[in-house]
This record gives sequence, C-alpha cells and structure tokens, in this order.
Amino acid sequence: MGEKVKVAVDAMGGDYAPAEPVKGAVDAVNQNEDIYIFLIGPHKTVKQELDKFSYPKDRIEIVDATEVIETGEAPVKAIRLKKDSSLVKSMNMVRHQEADALVSAGSSGAILVGGQVIIGRIKGVKRPPLAPLIPTENGVSLLIDCGANVDARPEHLCQFASMGSIYMENVIGVKNPKVAIVNIGAEEEKGNALVKETFPMLKANRNINFIGSIEARDIPKGTADVIVCEAFVGNVILKLYEGVGSTLIKKVKEGMMTTLRGKAGGLLVKPALKETLKTFDASRYGGAPLLGLKGLVVKTHGSSKAMEFKNSILQCIQFKNEHINEKIEEHITDGAAGGKD
Amino acid sequence: MGEKVKVAVDAMGGDYAPAEPVKGAVDAVNQNEDIYIFLIGPHKTVKQELDKFSYPKDRIEIVDATEVIETGEAPVKAIRLKKDSSLVKSMNMVRHQEADALVSAGSSGAILVGGQVIIGRIKGVKRPPLAPLIPTENGVSLLIDCGANVDARPEHLCQFASMGSIYMENVIGVKNPKVAIVNIGAEEEKGNALVKETFPMLKANRNINFIGSIEARDIPKGTADVIVCEAFVGNVILKLYEGVGSTLIKKVKEGMMTTLRGKAGGLLVKPALKETLKTFDASRYGGAPLLGLKGLVVKTHGSSKAMEFKNSILQCIQFKNEHINEKIEEHITDGAAGGKD
Repeated sequence: MGEKVKVAVDAMGGDYAPAEPVKGAVDAVNQNEDIYIFLIGPHKTVKQELDKFSYPKDRIEIVDATEVIETGEAPVKAIRLKKDSSLVKSMNMVRHQEADALVSAGSSGAILVGGQVIIGRIKGVKRPPLAPLIPTENGVSLLIDCGANVDARPEHLCQFASMGSIYMENVIGVKNPKVAIVNIGAEEEKGNALVKETFPMLKANRNINFIGSIEARDIPKGTADVIVCEAFVGNVILKLYEGVGSTLIKKVKEGMMTTLRGKAGGLLVKPALKETLKTFDASRYGGAPLLGLKGLVVKTHGSSKAMEFKNSILQCIQFKNEHINEKIEEHITDGAAGGKD
Repeated sequence: MGEKVKVAVDAMGGDYAPAEPVKGAVDAVNQNEDIYIFLIGPHKTVKQELDKFSYPKDRIEIVDATEVIETGEAPVKAIRLKKDSSLVKSMNMVRHQEADALVSAGSSGAILVGGQVIIGRIKGVKRPPLAPLIPTENGVSLLIDCGANVDARPEHLCQFASMGSIYMENVIGVKNPKVAIVNIGAEEEKGNALVKETFPMLKANRNINFIGSIEARDIPKGTADVIVCEAFVGNVILKLYEGVGSTLIKKVKEGMMTTLRGKAGGLLVKPALKETLKTFDASRYGGAPLLGLKGLVVKTHGSSKAMEFKNSILQCIQFKNEHINEKIEEHITDGAAGGKD
C-alpha cells in the first residue's frame, strides 16, 4: 500500500543480539508488507542469523557495520569514536533519510545522545523525551519523560505533554487523551517547585486535555493516558512498576507452593494467571519512542525478544503514516505561544 | 518493667475514628503492660467506644478535646486555630513531656506542621522526615523521606540517612543497616543534581553503612534497609507501591474468574494467597515515624484499623527504651562534621 516504511534495526543492540532483533525483523516483514528493513551489524554475523529464516528477500537488506557500542561505554565518547558501530550507522541512515525510523535495544545513554547529536531535534523542540507505554487496568498509558535528561524545566514538561498527546492520539488511537502531571496530592497548590510552576502552564494549553494532578497510586488504574513528569521521577515510576510487579508475582507463586492445597490450585490457575499477566505486559505495544527528533527512534528494552522488536518495527508504520513529526512541529510552535486559537 | 511508656493516641484521626484507634489502644494495653495510654478526643464519644471493651482501667485515660481537624483543612491554619483539637492537644502533651509519643491517623499535613511548630525539632536536625516501612522480599525497608517537605537539599538527605540508620538498627533490629540513595542508574556519576551532590557526602559519612545507589527496580527486592530520597520521589514510590500492588492483585483475581478451571483453582489457592499478601503488608509493623522531633510522632495510614494502631503504639516502647532521640541528637551533630573519628 503505497511507499514502504523503511526501518533501520540495530542488529547488535540488546542482551539477545543478534538472534532476537533479526528474528523480530523477519517476523515484521512476514506480518506486514508495508515494511522494508535494514539490518545493521557485521555482515557475516547478521547473514548467518538471517539465513535461518524464510522471508521476502526483497524487503530485508543487511548494512555492514563492524563495531558495537557496549552498554557500559560512556555514551558521548562511544557515539563520537565508534563511527562504524551498528547504532551510529543506523542513526546516520535516519539522519540522511535513507531510513524513516530506527529500532534499537542498545545502550539507552548512547541512543539518547546519538539521537540529539546525529539525528537532531525538530525545530522548536527543546528536549526529546523518552516515552514508554506502561500497562494499566484499562490498557496502557504513556509515561513521559523517562530519559536521561534530568532536572527538567517547566517549558520542557509542557512540550512533553503536547508531544505525548499527539503520540497517544495518533499512534495508539486514544481519542482526546487525558493528560495529567505526577504530583504528591490532587490539589493545585501541592507539589514541588517544578510541578507548581508547570501546572498553570498545562492548564492554559488548549491543545491538550489536561485533567490536573495524578498521584502515583492512581497511575496503574489508568486514570490518565499521558503521564507527565521529569525524567528522574519517570525513571523511578517505570522501574518500580517492574520491580513491584515481579516481586509480587514471585510472592504469589511461592505462597501457592507452601501448602498441598495451594499447589493443586496453582496448577489449575496457571493458564489463567499467565494470560492475565500478559495483559499487564507493555512490551506487546513495542518499545519507547524518543519523541521530537527528525526521524523516529524507538528504544526497546535491553532484554527484548523478537516479539518486542517486531512490535517496535510495526509501530513505525503508524508513526510515519500519521505524520507524527509534522504534527509535533506544528503544535510545539503553537504550544510555546500558549494555545492554538 | 520500669517506667511506663506514655502514648497519646489521637482518637479522632483517620477514616475509622474513633472506633479503630480506641480498639487499637485497648489491644495495646492488653498485650503489653509497659504501655500507658491517653486517648484524646471528645470525652463522651471516646468513653462510649471505650466502654465496649475490657482492659486495665489504670492504664487508659481519656483526655477531653472538643475539636477535630479534618483531612481537607489547610494544615497551618488548622494547627493555629483549633487549639482544642485532638491532634493539637496530643501534640501539646508530647511537647510538655506528659506523653513520650503520639500516634495519629489524622491529616498528614497537620501532623507534619504541628510536629515542627508545637513539638519542635531536636537540636541540629534541619528537617524532620516521615519514614514509613515498606514491605520487601526480605522483610521491610525504611523509605525516608515521604513527607511534605519537597525540594530538599543534600544536607537534609544526609541527615535522613543517619536518622534512618539509627531507627532501623535500634527499633526494627537490623544490624548495621545498608543505606542506599534512590537513583536512575547504579554508577556514581548518574543522577540529578541533588543526588550527584549528596552521593559523595553519604560516602564520606563513616557512621552509616552506605552501599551506593539503588534503582527503583531493586527496592522491592530488599537490597537496602534504608532508602534515602527527597519527599516528592519518596511519595511517588510509596503510593506507586500501593497502586501497582492493588492493581496486580485485582488482575490476578479477575484472571482466575475467567475460566471454570481458574475458578476451581482460585478457591484452592485463596488461603495461601491471603497469607502471602499478609507478608507483603507493612501495616503490621505500625505507622511511619516522623523522625527528628523532641518526642516521637507516629503517623499511621488514614485507613488504619485497630491492628495498625496497636502496632504503632507498641513501636513507641522500643523507640523510648532504645533512646532513639538521644542517639539522633548525638549523631546528627557528628554527621554534620562529616564522620565520627
């Protein structure tokens, strides 16, 4: 259907590279014919993986890259020195518009730095936020920002709110998404200096559906679709979500194993439990977009499997077809002026 | 066993007052003979509740207070104007050393303000942190600070670390408690401005067992005993803990109900599940102490039942007998000078 969406996949990023990113790429092209993939990595290594699968040969192309950026490396230095790494090469393809988007499970730091330095920000965007989807009782919410740009200012948070709204409405399909700011109480006068200053600015922005403060307790309930916070708080929320979830599930399983009765019941509930926990798994929506760059960058979890790579790749179709970046460019300028009409 | 520990219980604080605080007080004196209780509230109302129980009459005394501070009231104003409220009267009893400690499930804001204004800080303490215990895989950790004093400075966080260590070691009984600061990565150079400035100060403090940064993901694992953060972040952690927990449990229950097989299994695992979730419930340790005041203030959850009131009251015995405040006074001075020896 029309022009293909070209996605550069960093074949060497993540704990299970190259096997899982390669498999994810194959699954994506097999599932959707609008996708064209560049697999970036050492030619021989990537080809060896790729040859295990059957797929339309005219829609996956290997782009040779001899270096790999490791998770522990200092991001700025790695981006500058490893010109022939799979990540830097992928980013250059997006920069030169050879690819529309890039998917990587590599070093977050290098992705955040490279995105700004190599691909560059959309005009008017002050900071590109990393915005993962988190599971809730109703589906998913967008948590914006979880990146590495801590100590944000109110104008950054306002831009996050606008970009997050555009993404949720057009990529995830939530009509008129509810935007809230993370706070320690529901009242307008509560909060730290940053929140107090940001609150009236969000309230004045007529381009978003701002519903006020959200307490962390209500985030899992899905009370808001776009959850605005600065990156330190966002990072804490994202990781605690994972942590509490996994501890609780472990406890529940252990609990069942303590009695014979529990063991028998455990066997019976296992399939239902597994199904439930799947609905509480955000990875099926794909990775976290780094919004506000000239081209889409999707960061997937370091421990991503093929499924998450595939979903991250498919996410790029909607992003391109809905002209998200054009919408961001248009609204960010308006947003700064404090409302459209 | 020696002198009684005198605890003022705000009989009108919390969602289930006066019934639950009164029952908690009765349970406490019945369980431990070192406790002497003042129940503060309207004499007639409190007496009516108290008369439902049998208890040693010489260890519970009603102190009349005609007013009540409601949750919605502006804290500073409420503390100033409602001199005859159960909370202000309780605080005055601690101030005048008629009581050693105060337990209340009332308005957090009023408790935090009243603690500072009426009872006052220990010499050298810059800010009294609210420090709840949170459940982990290994037991509990102390989350310090979750109060309303947002936008803390590094020297505040350092004092929190010292006070938290003293509390965990002497009241909860954790030998040489591991102290960590909440951060967005494990490396020393990561974090926001506050964390980067605080980290070396904690590292230099030889009175605490500082183990470095903790990512939110690891908090539920119990990796650290004392978890230091500023109040905004602490509040987010505390409330998200509750939120993710309750959503997940709801999902698990719903999941079991979707199939016949799941339903049958659900009935079998129910008792084991209930037992497990109890071990993941911090309320059995009592409420959150507001540390660093001249006298102990324990804030219990607004929805506390008798069990939490009882445990909060019993917690005061250890606090007094272990001379926590004397230890805080001694170490806070040392801490400011950057280590003991």
